[in-house]
Amino acid sequence: MSDSDTNRVFLLAERPTGRPDEDTFELAEREVPEPGPGEALVRTLYMSVDPYMRGRMRAADSYAESWDVGDPLRAGVVGEVVESNGAGFEPGDVVTGDMQWADYATVAGPELTQVDPDRAPISTYLGVLGMPGNTAYFGVQDVTEPKAGETFVVTGAAGAVGSVAGQIAKLNGARVVGFAGSDEKVEFLEEIGFDVGINYKTTDDYGAALDEAAPDGIDAYFDNVGGEITDAVFPRLNVDARVGVCGQIALYNATEVPTGPRKLAMLIESRATVEGFLVSDFSERFDQSVPQLGEWVQSGDLQYRETVTEGLENAPDAFLGLFDGDNIGKQLVKVSEYSG
Amino acid sequence: MSDSDTNRVFLLAERPTGRPDEDTFELAEREVPEPGPGEALVRTLYMSVDPYMRGRMRAADSYAESWDVGDPLRAGVVGEVVESNGAGFEPGDVVTGDMQWADYATVAGPELTQVDPDRAPISTYLGVLGMPGNTAYFGVQDVTEPKAGETFVVTGAAGAVGSVAGQIAKLNGARVVGFAGSDEKVEFLEEIGFDVGINYKTTDDYGAALDEAAPDGIDAYFDNVGGEITDAVFPRLNVDARVGVCGQIALYNATEVPTGPRKLAMLIESRATVEGFLVSDFSERFDQSVPQLGEWVQSGDLQYRETVTEGLENAPDAFLGLFDGDNIGKQLVKVSEYSG
Repeated sequence: MSDSDTNRVFLLAERPTGRPDEDTFELAEREVPEPGPGEALVRTLYMSVDPYMRGRMRAADSYAESWDVGDPLRAGVVGEVVESNGAGFEPGDVVTGDMQWADYATVAGPELTQVDPDRAPISTYLGVLGMPGNTAYFGVQDVTEPKAGETFVVTGAAGAVGSVAGQIAKLNGARVVGFAGSDEKVEFLEEIGFDVGINYKTTDDYGAALDEAAPDGIDAYFDNVGGEITDAVFPRLNVDARVGVCGQIALYNATEVPTGPRKLAMLIESRATVEGFLVSDFSERFDQSVPQLGEWVQSGDLQYRETVTEGLENAPDAFLGLFDGDNIGKQLVKVSEYSG
Repeated sequence: MSDSDTNRVFLLAERPTGRPDEDTFELAEREVPEPGPGEALVRTLYMSVDPYMRGRMRAADSYAESWDVGDPLRAGVVGEVVESNGAGFEPGDVVTGDMQWADYATVAGPELTQVDPDRAPISTYLGVLGMPGNTAYFGVQDVTEPKAGETFVVTGAAGAVGSVAGQIAKLNGARVVGFAGSDEKVEFLEEIGFDVGINYKTTDDYGAALDEAAPDGIDAYFDNVGGEITDAVFPRLNVDARVGVCGQIALYNATEVPTGPRKLAMLIESRATVEGFLVSDFSERFDQSVPQLGEWVQSGDLQYRETVTEGLENAPDAFLGLFDGDNIGKQLVKVSEYSG
């Protein structure tokens, strides 16, 4: 997929207004970098595209640092060590870390985590065993805390985070309702054990759909999307309900501040709690969450799906597709073949 | 103020659409009721009017039960026992409880709490030592939890709840910023120790006012009002900020669902928590909060003010004035003189 001495790197060509498009990205050709002392040269096998990257394209720092125009775009990557300059790895080792939208990157040893390719497919370290899986894990177990007999609602339910969140809520014993954007996705939700899947693109009245799907009200809401579905959820929150705000993808490309019904007064009656969260705040507990997620995957309790786009050159399309809901499960870009 | 054999009682004449007005209320004349077994006849000394009563005028139950058209309006009252039919009180005892917008009410003994008129002025049991004081206490100490060195912002700051909340936050060591609706109220805030008072009626740009008043951002927000001030607070919430939603008086008379900027995405970056709360959920701890509030009042750490409207017949005006911000501190209606 790449010549051994050429490194293709995507740069931020310009800051997008509204929805990013092809002008947002520039594919530059550079030499494959040399690892400095303590660094490894890593060849990208899979890279992750994620909705939060839209925030990094803005001039102001969001929770993630802003990218500068002309800079390489960054991504979670699973790659293979080509050369180690005292980084503590061997050529052929599979590692994961924060790298670039590129064929190769040099990374300091401590910023890489070794991956065991025999334990689980290497791509899962960007999905169910990676950032999205951990986001789902802590968003369910620490933030929204659905209990047996309660009703849990998740948006972006067929995505990398939502599909895992719903299954963990189900393992907790909750009734699980998911919103997704196609009939195919709704079928997927039912396959992986959701009680009800709702196709929000073909549903006019979200409130009526929720009244039917969640007749006892909503105790826990895991929100990846925001907007009108969330507007319908708030009046249906039970007393002491928990809302976890993980993402608001419906709003990320807005060029004006989106407006909607004011909802805070509803929290008085429900005494509900609404909490924003970032998976990075839980990183000290990944040593508990990742083995647990791995066990559930191995036992079949936790199913996952991946949507794989082939070729680094197609990474922008894979990213833009997130905003159309093209992906089921984790959206990955396969950049090169694993030699192992 | 009332003949001994006539009991004036305000009834809900019709459900208001939007802002209540004189047609909402009907003043009926009835006979003074006889206390049944276990009941006391109580003469109203002071009654409380509160914003939450607007919710009880709607057809649907809010957190407080809906009033029916034709029914007596209810209120927190401090009154004097006239006659006890085995209720466990003596004539002349001062009691507080949930009674009516009326000269007299009969109440079951267990629903009354005796008040010590020597410990604090009897009217304070409807204010700083009553429901508003407890709302402030738990909203600060349990929900928004401002700590030393943090910045605490409160709306409706000159009201019965807000003025107490700000002072408790100050006792915790926080920087305290309050929004109120007149220069006189802002002066009051400064008298009682707020760091900054902002007259929201003469301030065009709430964001700029907050940038100046809270240069280090906002760690704790106690919201009694909602609307545009809240819109300006959310983007200024610090990491792990706490928002307590106590009331949304700016919206209570709305006839259509009010809209505003969508704010949930801001919670992701700040990892802030937004929680609605009701003082009634903390009632088991009033035995701790009321003595603490009383101590602070006696030591002068906690100052309070009351706005007293004379005469039961003027209770509707006192209630309606809440929505114009006529009151400083607790709005009371004085119905009759205490004989003690």
